[in-house]
Amino acid sequence: MSEPLEPARGRRAFFQQTLALATAFGATAACSRRTAGEKVGAEALPATEPPKQTVAAASGPRVGFAVVGLGKFATEQILPAFAACTRAKLVGLVSGTPDKAKRIAEQYGVEAKNVYDYKSFDRIRDNAAIDVVYVILPNSLHAEYSERGARAGKHVLCEKPMAITAKECEGMIRASKTAGKKLMIGYRAQFEPNNLRAIELVKRGEIGKVKTIIADHGRILRPEEPSDSWRAKRALAGGGSLMDIGIYSLQAARYITGEEPLEVSARTFSTPGDPRFAEIEETVAFSLAFPSGVLANCTSSYGHAEGKRYRVFGDKGYLDLDPATAYEGNVLRASKGGKPAELIEVPHGNQFAAEMDHLAECIQSGKEPKTPGEEGLRDVRIMEAIYAAAREHRPVRLGGDTQHG
Amino acid sequence: MSEPLEPARGRRAFFQQTLALATAFGATAACSRRTAGEKVGAEALPATEPPKQTVAAASGPRVGFAVVGLGKFATEQILPAFAACTRAKLVGLVSGTPDKAKRIAEQYGVEAKNVYDYKSFDRIRDNAAIDVVYVILPNSLHAEYSERGARAGKHVLCEKPMAITAKECEGMIRASKTAGKKLMIGYRAQFEPNNLRAIELVKRGEIGKVKTIIADHGRILRPEEPSDSWRAKRALAGGGSLMDIGIYSLQAARYITGEEPLEVSARTFSTPGDPRFAEIEETVAFSLAFPSGVLANCTSSYGHAEGKRYRVFGDKGYLDLDPATAYEGNVLRASKGGKPAELIEVPHGNQFAAEMDHLAECIQSGKEPKTPGEEGLRDVRIMEAIYAAAREHRPVRLGGDTQHG
Repeated sequence: MSEPLEPARGRRAFFQQTLALATAFGATAACSRRTAGEKVGAEALPATEPPKQTVAAASGPRVGFAVVGLGKFATEQILPAFAACTRAKLVGLVSGTPDKAKRIAEQYGVEAKNVYDYKSFDRIRDNAAIDVVYVILPNSLHAEYSERGARAGKHVLCEKPMAITAKECEGMIRASKTAGKKLMIGYRAQFEPNNLRAIELVKRGEIGKVKTIIADHGRILRPEEPSDSWRAKRALAGGGSLMDIGIYSLQAARYITGEEPLEVSARTFSTPGDPRFAEIEETVAFSLAFPSGVLANCTSSYGHAEGKRYRVFGDKGYLDLDPATAYEGNVLRASKGGKPAELIEVPHGNQFAAEMDHLAECIQSGKEPKTPGEEGLRDVRIMEAIYAAAREHRPVRLGGDTQHG
Repeated sequence: MSEPLEPARGRRAFFQQTLALATAFGATAACSRRTAGEKVGAEALPATEPPKQTVAAASGPRVGFAVVGLGKFATEQILPAFAACTRAKLVGLVSGTPDKAKRIAEQYGVEAKNVYDYKSFDRIRDNAAIDVVYVILPNSLHAEYSERGARAGKHVLCEKPMAITAKECEGMIRASKTAGKKLMIGYRAQFEPNNLRAIELVKRGEIGKVKTIIADHGRILRPEEPSDSWRAKRALAGGGSLMDIGIYSLQAARYITGEEPLEVSARTFSTPGDPRFAEIEETVAFSLAFPSGVLANCTSSYGHAEGKRYRVFGDKGYLDLDPATAYEGNVLRASKGGKPAELIEVPHGNQFAAEMDHLAECIQSGKEPKTPGEEGLRDVRIMEAIYAAAREHRPVRLGGDTQHG
């Protein structure tokens, strides 16, 4: 499952990532609280200024995270982001590749006793240093490892999509509730500063009444690369571009409106004969009708060039985010009164660190996460309806609640 | 029908427009061929350089156009554009408002004997100076005045949408064929340099295989303004945002792919209680499935702020036009190989003048226009299918040919 990183290259990439992140955030809070045993690439950097994204000062001991799955996203985005955290800290690793686990444990100063494989995973219950398991595995394994994490008495942070069926999501919610532990879904865009500003601007009425949302996400699927190989397999991915990146279009429509769609229409296309799309769909065009009358027209594709954008049209102007959901470098522009769109400068913040610190804070203070399992379940239900609409060639109505978050 | 322009303001607007256009194009060919009787606002400008958009030198006498309907679009865009023409010239006017017709005739040096009203319109058959009638009336009058023009032995240029039903379009095509005269639809974007470059780049494979097209057109409908009052009335407009501006999204999807859609899905929304949308639809979200597998996700809205854009995602990059279909100032950008989009500088050209000169050239050389009545009919048929899909809540398949242009 996990990506076999070539060590030298992986190490270089890691140091570059860490350096960039550490520089951006001053890398002070993380460094100052680190114990002698914790080695990270950033520790040699001078502490120049306090971290920019600290809202409330962290109190008490940090919340210990074990990262489950050491693929590209985990190693290139999540592990380095701990350097920018003020409440969360990396204490454990779970991987099926012992060499990689050992190397990464050394890089990040993770104690050998906190490194698990998928067989020994359940013994994590006996490890008091680990408060949270962060599940970063292929989609079809999210339910199993989240539930096993909950049964081991741990809080769970699980990557999107929450699981490959709504039924699985319901099981995950039950497991965490039974264990009396938190369950949060890794919706990083809901912790990303440009997206948060967009939500705020819409709520403040800066573009008037929202009318139409256009959201498009695309990238070329390359199954020859380890990080994409499982994405072409239905048994592991559960679906194609919709579940992987279309979910960002869907999320944007939901968090911008603050509403749940009443009905979905959809159409899929996969290039005939392209082996990448033998099991999963290439492109999905879907539209969502919201209770307020907002229409969202969305796409996702594994077949075309990079696209991560959305635009919110209101009756007094529009907001444009392009890119909207990149790991770094998102750009927010606003147009009002028919004038050309102008850049809105938003202070930089590490969305991954913010996400992990949020869960840590919820655990420390007993709050419910802003993106709980129920939020993940809603998306999976809507995606099931989108697939049904495309398959059955008809609009599909959605039941359930009409407001969220 | 025609917009009652306040004279002083109209005149000022006209001179500003003419000045801008004449400056952009050198205003030489038009001026040099003008007779003593033809006064235009641009004639005092120095002839500095040849007009940039002349492709083949015009030969023989110019083709005489009579503009039918003197609303805002005619007076602010079309009449000034004759100054940039090399083959077409303005010789006649048709208006229901005698004062306005007289004033504009004086401004443009149109002889009094070439000014008609809607009662005397048919007598245009006896006027040899008029070769073409350019119908710029509310949509529901396009069929009547185009057919009367053809029966009067004139070539017809008709604004989009061609008519409000496919049946009307068929009648227009028959009338022009019977008369042995040309019928062309005013699809200005197919004569606009940025759009032409986009079509060329796609054909050359610059962005690889086209996968997805996103096209959005919006503007706030203001029925309190004379140029919009008829647009809120179904009997005059035939429909709402789709027929007026959604047609640009539809056109873009068709001229970029060079294909005809096989199937459409659609959803409409009109704000309940908003009197502007008592008779016509506010917003339409529609998707088109093309034979090659391209999916186009399009919107049009009368309820939100200015939007005139499309993006073409290919498997090697994307083209972005934003704005794509403005009267002036369209911007084309291209992204290749995952790099940020870069501006593609396209030499400026007056799309209205190019459109009118194209018809003039077709008349002079006996060619068929690139946007004939059949092209207008295709769009009207597709728009009828879009309305049916929204009304009947199901995808609608389209028959007919699968390639165009």
